[in-house]
Amino acid sequence: MLDEAGPQALLHAPTEGHLPFREALSGWLTGRGIVCGAEDVLVLSGSQQGLHLAARVFLNPGDTVIVEAPTYFGAKEAFRQAGARLIGVESDDDGLQVDRLAALLQHHRPKLIYVLPTFQNPSGAVLSLERRHRLLRLASAYAIPIIEDDTYADLRYDGAPLPSLKALDLAGIVLSLGTFSKILFPGLRLGWLVAPRDVLRQFALAKQTDDLHANTPGQLVLEQMIRQGYLQSHLESMREVYRERRDLMGESLAAHAFEGMHWRKPQGGFYYWVTLPPRVDRGRLSSAAADQGVSFLPGDPCFVEEPSAYSVRLNFSYPSPGQIREGVARFMQALRFSTGGREHPWKRNQMTTRPII
Amino acid sequence: MLDEAGPQALLHAPTEGHLPFREALSGWLTGRGIVCGAEDVLVLSGSQQGLHLAARVFLNPGDTVIVEAPTYFGAKEAFRQAGARLIGVESDDDGLQVDRLAALLQHHRPKLIYVLPTFQNPSGAVLSLERRHRLLRLASAYAIPIIEDDTYADLRYDGAPLPSLKALDLAGIVLSLGTFSKILFPGLRLGWLVAPRDVLRQFALAKQTDDLHANTPGQLVLEQMIRQGYLQSHLESMREVYRERRDLMGESLAAHAFEGMHWRKPQGGFYYWVTLPPRVDRGRLSSAAADQGVSFLPGDPCFVEEPSAYSVRLNFSYPSPGQIREGVARFMQALRFSTGGREHPWKRNQMTTRPII
Repeated sequence: MLDEAGPQALLHAPTEGHLPFREALSGWLTGRGIVCGAEDVLVLSGSQQGLHLAARVFLNPGDTVIVEAPTYFGAKEAFRQAGARLIGVESDDDGLQVDRLAALLQHHRPKLIYVLPTFQNPSGAVLSLERRHRLLRLASAYAIPIIEDDTYADLRYDGAPLPSLKALDLAGIVLSLGTFSKILFPGLRLGWLVAPRDVLRQFALAKQTDDLHANTPGQLVLEQMIRQGYLQSHLESMREVYRERRDLMGESLAAHAFEGMHWRKPQGGFYYWVTLPPRVDRGRLSSAAADQGVSFLPGDPCFVEEPSAYSVRLNFSYPSPGQIREGVARFMQALRFSTGGREHPWKRNQMTTRPII
Repeated sequence: MLDEAGPQALLHAPTEGHLPFREALSGWLTGRGIVCGAEDVLVLSGSQQGLHLAARVFLNPGDTVIVEAPTYFGAKEAFRQAGARLIGVESDDDGLQVDRLAALLQHHRPKLIYVLPTFQNPSGAVLSLERRHRLLRLASAYAIPIIEDDTYADLRYDGAPLPSLKALDLAGIVLSLGTFSKILFPGLRLGWLVAPRDVLRQFALAKQTDDLHANTPGQLVLEQMIRQGYLQSHLESMREVYRERRDLMGESLAAHAFEGMHWRKPQGGFYYWVTLPPRVDRGRLSSAAADQGVSFLPGDPCFVEEPSAYSVRLNFSYPSPGQIREGVARFMQALRFSTGGREHPWKRNQMTTRPII
C-alpha cells in the first residue's frame, strides 16, 4: 500500500473519507443489496462513532429513542450520554415485536428507532422479512428515522440471507451503519454510514469537530482488500471457521446443560444468548467464572429496564475449538456452583489463564 | 511492526490506548518537560477529539468558555456545537492578554479556558512566561480548568523554549492536548491528553462511546518511532526545513508588501498571520486568489466576534520553496487587485494548479 500510494497514505483525508475507498466500499455494498454510490457513504472511525454522531445530530436531552430489549449496550450508553430517554421494545426469535412498537407509537414520539435486524447483539435473533416491511411502513408513517446496525450481517452460517432494512427502504428513512471490526482488522477502526445525502452531510459536519477524519492508511489498505477480492474470500473462509465454532459451542452447551437453561442456536453472528435458571446467584456466578478464567457478558447491561430473566452472552468467534469445549465446561461448573449451595471444588486458575469465552 | 507484533497489531486496543505506546509517549513527554507516566496519558484519535471530549465532559448548553481572539476555528466549532457561549479575549504579540481575562472573571464564571500558548493558531504568538504564571494563578484562584492546546510546541525555529502550562501546573488544573498530526503522519489520527487521573477517566468513558479506541496499528508504529529515536531526529530535520520556508515566506512577503499590511515573523508553527489594509474587498480577494490557484485561511472564522481588522493565515510548511515564492507573488497580485479598482490582468490558471499556500 505504501509502495503504491506513497506519502499520501499517511497524510490527511477528507472528513467524508478517502474517495477511492468510498468508491470501492459503495461497490461492495451494492453487491450486498445496498445500492449506493461513493457519495452515499460516509467513512466512520468504527460504527460506534455512527451511534455517537446519530445522538449528536438527532437528539436533545429528554428526547426518546426506541431500542430493542435486549440491545447493544454501547448504543445504549451513547444515547444515554446524550441525555436521551430510552424505551426498550421486547423482541423474540423473530426480532423486534413490531406490534408492541405500533402500540407504543400511539403514545410516544421517539426521535429515533435503533435496531440490529440481523444476528442481533446480544440475542442473535433475525428480524423476519414480514416484520422488516412492517417496521419500515410504521417508521415511514410516523416519519421516524431508523438506525439500522448491520454489524453482523455478513456473518451468516445457515439459511437464506434477508435484505437489510436499507435495501428495502423506499422512503429514505433508514440510516445503515456497518463496520469492518467484526470481519477484518478491528484495530483499524473503520466503519461506514449509508444514508440520504442531507443526513450524511449533517453527520460529516458533526464528525469534523469530532476527529476530522478516519485514519488514512487503514482506508487505503481496506480499499485494496475490497478491490482485490480479498475481503470476499476472507469472509467465506471466516464463515467456515465460525460455523464450526458455533456448532461446537452448541454441542458443548447441550452436553452440560441442566434444567431451566434456554438458548437458541444462532444462524449467524458471534454469540449464544443463554437464559439461566431463576435460582442463579449472579455474584457467585461472576466470581466463580472469573476463578475459572472464563469471561462472559452479563445480560443486564443490555436492557433498559430490569429484565424478567437472567441471561448471559457467550462468544464463540474468538476462542479456539479446544477453548470452547473447555470454556463451556468450566462455565457450566461455575453455573452449577452458583445455583447450588456447595463450595466450589476447584482451585483458582493461574492468573495467566486467558479469558476463553 | 507487523513482523514484530503479529495479529495483535490489527486487533482491538484498550480505550485508554495501547499500554506500551502510552509508556513510550509518557517517556517522550517527560523529556519535553511534562513529567508523567503511562497512566497519566490518554491516547486520542487526534487532538481534535480532545476538544470534542472536553465539550462533552465539561459543558452543558449555555455554559461559557473563554478562548483567545483569534483562536483555532476547529475548537470554536467543537465548543459551539455543544451549545457553549464563547467569549474571546484579545491577544497580542505576547499571547492572551491576561489582564483582560482577570477583568472578565469579575463578571463571568466560565467552565473552561482554552488557550494555545505556543505558536498560537492562527496568530503565531507565544504566551510570555510571566503571563503563563499569571494565567495559572488566575485559573487556580477561580478553579477553572485550562485546556492547553500544545499542537505546535515542538516546531520552534528560533529562541529559547518556554515551559508548557502543564509543566508549570502545580494546582492540577491544566489539561494538555497534543498531537502527532503536525509532526509525523497526520493520516494516522493520533493525539494525546495529559491530565489529572480523575479527569482522564471521565474522558476515557466519553471516548468509549465515541469510537471505542484509537486505531491500533498507528499506535504500534508511533511507539517504535519514539523508542528508536526516529521521532526526535525527524523533528530536528523538519525544523530545518520549516525554518527555511518560514524565512523565505517572510522575505517574499517583504518583497511584495505595500502600505497597510502588517505581520510578524513567527518563532515557530506553520503560519504567517497577515493583517491586510482596511480597503481590501474580501470577496474580490477570495475569487482572485482562487483564480490564481492560491489558497489561504480567511481570519474571520477564527474570531468569536467580528474583528476590527481583516487578517489572513498563510501556511508555509506545506508548499515547496518555489511554491512559496510563486504563491506569495500571486497572492499579492490578488491582494492588489482587491484593494484597487482595476480589472485583474491575468488569465485564470489551469484547474490542475495545486493550492500552494
